[in-house]
Amino acid sequence: MTSWTLARRAERLNPSTIREILKITERPGIISLAGGLPSADTFPVQAMREATATVLRDTPREALQYAASEGFGPLREWVAAELAGQGIQVDADQVLITTGSQQGLDLVGKVLIDPGSAVAVESPTYLGALQAFAPYEAEFVAVEGDDDGPLPQALDAARGARFLYLLPNYQNPTGRCLPAARRLALAARAAEIGLPIVEDNPYGDLWFDEPPPPPVRATAGDGAVYLGSFSKVLAPGLRLGYVVAPRVLYPKLLQAKQASDLHTPGFNQRVVHEVVKSGFLKEHVPTIRARYKAQRDAMATALQAHLPPGCRWLAPVGGMFFWVELPAHLDATALLPQAVEAGMAYVPGSSFYPQGGHANTLRLSFVTVPPERIVEGVVALGRVLRQA
Amino acid sequence: MTSWTLARRAERLNPSTIREILKITERPGIISLAGGLPSADTFPVQAMREATATVLRDTPREALQYAASEGFGPLREWVAAELAGQGIQVDADQVLITTGSQQGLDLVGKVLIDPGSAVAVESPTYLGALQAFAPYEAEFVAVEGDDDGPLPQALDAARGARFLYLLPNYQNPTGRCLPAARRLALAARAAEIGLPIVEDNPYGDLWFDEPPPPPVRATAGDGAVYLGSFSKVLAPGLRLGYVVAPRVLYPKLLQAKQASDLHTPGFNQRVVHEVVKSGFLKEHVPTIRARYKAQRDAMATALQAHLPPGCRWLAPVGGMFFWVELPAHLDATALLPQAVEAGMAYVPGSSFYPQGGHANTLRLSFVTVPPERIVEGVVALGRVLRQA
Repeated sequence: MTSWTLARRAERLNPSTIREILKITERPGIISLAGGLPSADTFPVQAMREATATVLRDTPREALQYAASEGFGPLREWVAAELAGQGIQVDADQVLITTGSQQGLDLVGKVLIDPGSAVAVESPTYLGALQAFAPYEAEFVAVEGDDDGPLPQALDAARGARFLYLLPNYQNPTGRCLPAARRLALAARAAEIGLPIVEDNPYGDLWFDEPPPPPVRATAGDGAVYLGSFSKVLAPGLRLGYVVAPRVLYPKLLQAKQASDLHTPGFNQRVVHEVVKSGFLKEHVPTIRARYKAQRDAMATALQAHLPPGCRWLAPVGGMFFWVELPAHLDATALLPQAVEAGMAYVPGSSFYPQGGHANTLRLSFVTVPPERIVEGVVALGRVLRQA
Repeated sequence: MTSWTLARRAERLNPSTIREILKITERPGIISLAGGLPSADTFPVQAMREATATVLRDTPREALQYAASEGFGPLREWVAAELAGQGIQVDADQVLITTGSQQGLDLVGKVLIDPGSAVAVESPTYLGALQAFAPYEAEFVAVEGDDDGPLPQALDAARGARFLYLLPNYQNPTGRCLPAARRLALAARAAEIGLPIVEDNPYGDLWFDEPPPPPVRATAGDGAVYLGSFSKVLAPGLRLGYVVAPRVLYPKLLQAKQASDLHTPGFNQRVVHEVVKSGFLKEHVPTIRARYKAQRDAMATALQAHLPPGCRWLAPVGGMFFWVELPAHLDATALLPQAVEAGMAYVPGSSFYPQGGHANTLRLSFVTVPPERIVEGVVALGRVLRQA
């Protein structure tokens, strides 16, 4: 009889609450405000058609062959140039192309986290990061914060942590954006206490009225690893992201990448480079912003009109999410089945907290479904909350 | 001053000798018999053109959106049906699509290896597997073998190991194929001592005269995890592989997959399914076999004609590699610069041994370059060896 013995870290792997919810919400007729799925209307299908045809006409042998673990050279150069525009000065050889930025998080965990290592996180924070770091047996330290993000003086409690994981722009799940002063103060305090920063920026391009302040990496320099993604500005199904790392870390991240999947599909990298190389995003991203802004407005108005008194939220100035705090006696997880019954779905907020709790919070995405469906969904949510 | 502290496992990450060699051999003019790169002439470019066009015409929104971590349903069903033809009876829900089968190895390591866990391997074995397992701080136990593969009685030395990693078909690097009797005996002995098996089969379709015996998984059942790949029968640049796991392991592998990169690019999965769904491989793979068989023949003849006495090799009956043992006093790593100087490259065999040593071995790939270049390369190798 064969006996499979699991690694201890496997205990830290668990079914994703969100993925489980997403399965429920795939039922036809449910208005899902749950998933963080970009609107499929924003996918640049025509550009993809042309780019795949070009790549398969001009460089099929290269695109379909094994390729460098670092990534496709011209795409790495494009990323470095793009980042320069945001105040991040790096060479292309510091850019590592990853299979979505989720893989960047996994590689960071693999290279930096020992069993029992402290990892400082916002609370709440991106669930996918908690899931990437947890199997390396991180101990999460929740950094105290306010509506402007983590408090610089609160970093002292994270002294000695392997790094602070930070999502400054339109955070998933809260939607909050760190003001410039807070970014500078956090970078300064982190440098003083020797705390490395892992900055994740999947949503930075999705601003509505004005661009976010410069990334923390622009100040923190080699004190920060920076992660970016093409999922929100092109399409997530391509699984294309990148990590920008200080030279002291890059070789280990690269070796971890190689051990993990040899390289990100070269075909995808070449297709995306073909799409973006002549400035396509400059025309395309504003259309996504305009769409999401209108959907944000629709949700803001609907929440105002249909949520019962005692609920609190802030309208995000970019990104994809509203974060709602219900009256303290309500439990968003317990109410979810009723919401689904009423025809809508959200994500209960508890899973975003490294230590759980906060049962009275929930996340609503305003990007997946169009305005009229958003309103319907919020009306249904309001009805459920009133009954509770 | 920021202090980055590496995880202990990062010490086990090292630059890949092979990748470093590949960089050298990318110099124009060098005949590389080093890399395990499939011949780009075998890439089904026209089929890829049609499939990408179809996917982007019929299901662009689905192909470009986030998707299930398990993989694209119809592709998982295709894999299960394909495996049934090889004697492996599994349901599609036991198939996990991975970003190349290298990722399958990484996930297996993540879920099954604790620091200090024994992992039994052939010696020599696939370097990429050693690199995938090493960061999880595996202790490798080399299983004694002969030209037919590991010896069943030698498994006793691996009792208590987390698993035996086995590459039964045209192994990388030796090219050897385990006879049916050896497979059965290994499966039986492993079951007796409770030793799980991780069977890797990237090359099984590349047989020259007759198909290999049934996979070990066909006998071992839930005592084995099985890994497959589309890299050698379609194209490696798509990064598409799969893991077939017993139900007791599947959820943990799935959760590890989710934490690692959420899912394998849906676009790639749909394109490949579009290519393979109507039996394309039945026409296509025989053309690869015929090509590689001719190239195998060219290399066999050239080795016979041009290698000095005292060298030993066996002609492989499938796959991609010849494994050459030089006279004991020769060091393949030390001779490599001279070989490159002479215009060719190979991979020194030492890196394939979990405990190193065996300096007098080297691996030659016969699939990357056409017959006339193979001959030229072997002539150059023969000259270098004669001089040494």
